[in-house]
Amino acid sequence: MTGLWITFEGGDGSGKTTQAALLEQWLSEQGRTVVRTREPGGTDVGVLIRDIVLHHRGDIAPRAEALLYAADRAHHVATLVRPALERGDVVIQDRYLDSSVAYQGAGRVLDAGEVRDLSLWATGGALPDVTVLLDLDPAAARARLDAADKPFDRLEAEKAEFHERVRAAFLELAASEPERFLVLDASLPVEEIAAAVRDRVAGALR
Amino acid sequence: MTGLWITFEGGDGSGKTTQAALLEQWLSEQGRTVVRTREPGGTDVGVLIRDIVLHHRGDIAPRAEALLYAADRAHHVATLVRPALERGDVVIQDRYLDSSVAYQGAGRVLDAGEVRDLSLWATGGALPDVTVLLDLDPAAARARLDAADKPFDRLEAEKAEFHERVRAAFLELAASEPERFLVLDASLPVEEIAAAVRDRVAGALR
Repeated sequence: MTGLWITFEGGDGSGKTTQAALLEQWLSEQGRTVVRTREPGGTDVGVLIRDIVLHHRGDIAPRAEALLYAADRAHHVATLVRPALERGDVVIQDRYLDSSVAYQGAGRVLDAGEVRDLSLWATGGALPDVTVLLDLDPAAARARLDAADKPFDRLEAEKAEFHERVRAAFLELAASEPERFLVLDASLPVEEIAAAVRDRVAGALR
Repeated sequence: MTGLWITFEGGDGSGKTTQAALLEQWLSEQGRTVVRTREPGGTDVGVLIRDIVLHHRGDIAPRAEALLYAADRAHHVATLVRPALERGDVVIQDRYLDSSVAYQGAGRVLDAGEVRDLSLWATGGALPDVTVLLDLDPAAARARLDAADKPFDRLEAEKAEFHERVRAAFLELAASEPERFLVLDASLPVEEIAAAVRDRVAGALR
């Protein structure tokens, strides 16, 4: 058996956590060892970095923010993802470099290509085997988050136009790498999405 | 009056803090507004980053460490150094990108040119007007630190060979940019070093 690396991408409220949990359950039933992780904050160092990025009061310079995400990513891939894949585990990860490119590049003031290059330098060029993009209209995502009554973090509090640009950036990334990406309509029933994810992952495991 | 940006470089124990304080005193007597700062940790965000880099228990992946220093630098230059220079202040700074190149590039496993490019991306290419390199034999620096009975931080605890390589890297950087660097023998009397620094800064202010 060889390892497999699956990332989930999409805006907050698009159902990444739910789908990751369903996929983990199914893979475990197939006898696979699964590592569930996330960025930022998938390691002890990453938790400290995530805390700065998401909860610091006051602005962080755009390049500083991009570099903090890249630092988290470098440590996470080197110390957690790569060792797990080398053991033959399946890594299911909430957010990776596509989030940085979409949020930082398209949503902010930085060049998307530079942000991508930064992440690839951070990780020595590591890319997932499968990336599931849960695509959802930002207004629908907002309604879900409101219903869940979760407190907003700094990024969630940004305005609606920003989320529209992030969504467009994700779709553009998916179109540029159709072999890596599986784009799914996140407004579909949960079980329907889960089945499509399982099909794709089963194919990748064969 | 225009702003002037002066950085001090050299190993721990080479006298950077003492010389920065003497230069600040002299500049203040000349009627200049001085901003004393340092990297890492010159801003509120930087203090959080510095704490991760210097005091985290356990290894940090080399690229993650370089990215954390670059993030600190990006925020520091954007929010503190540039605004001060635009006001016409003199910025006196303990460590800048030359430290990253020397410690990370020469001392660790990363390519020095890549580490330098990372810092330059972080800051939009900002370089100091004057960089004072306080050059000291690592054994002499070690003796000074022992005498001061200061607790070692993570970098200070690295072995002697590492410090030799850092010293060589600093000297190489200075040789490659002779117009920016002023290299001084840090074993000379404090006042003699201070006079040489004042001469150079006075020339840059004219």
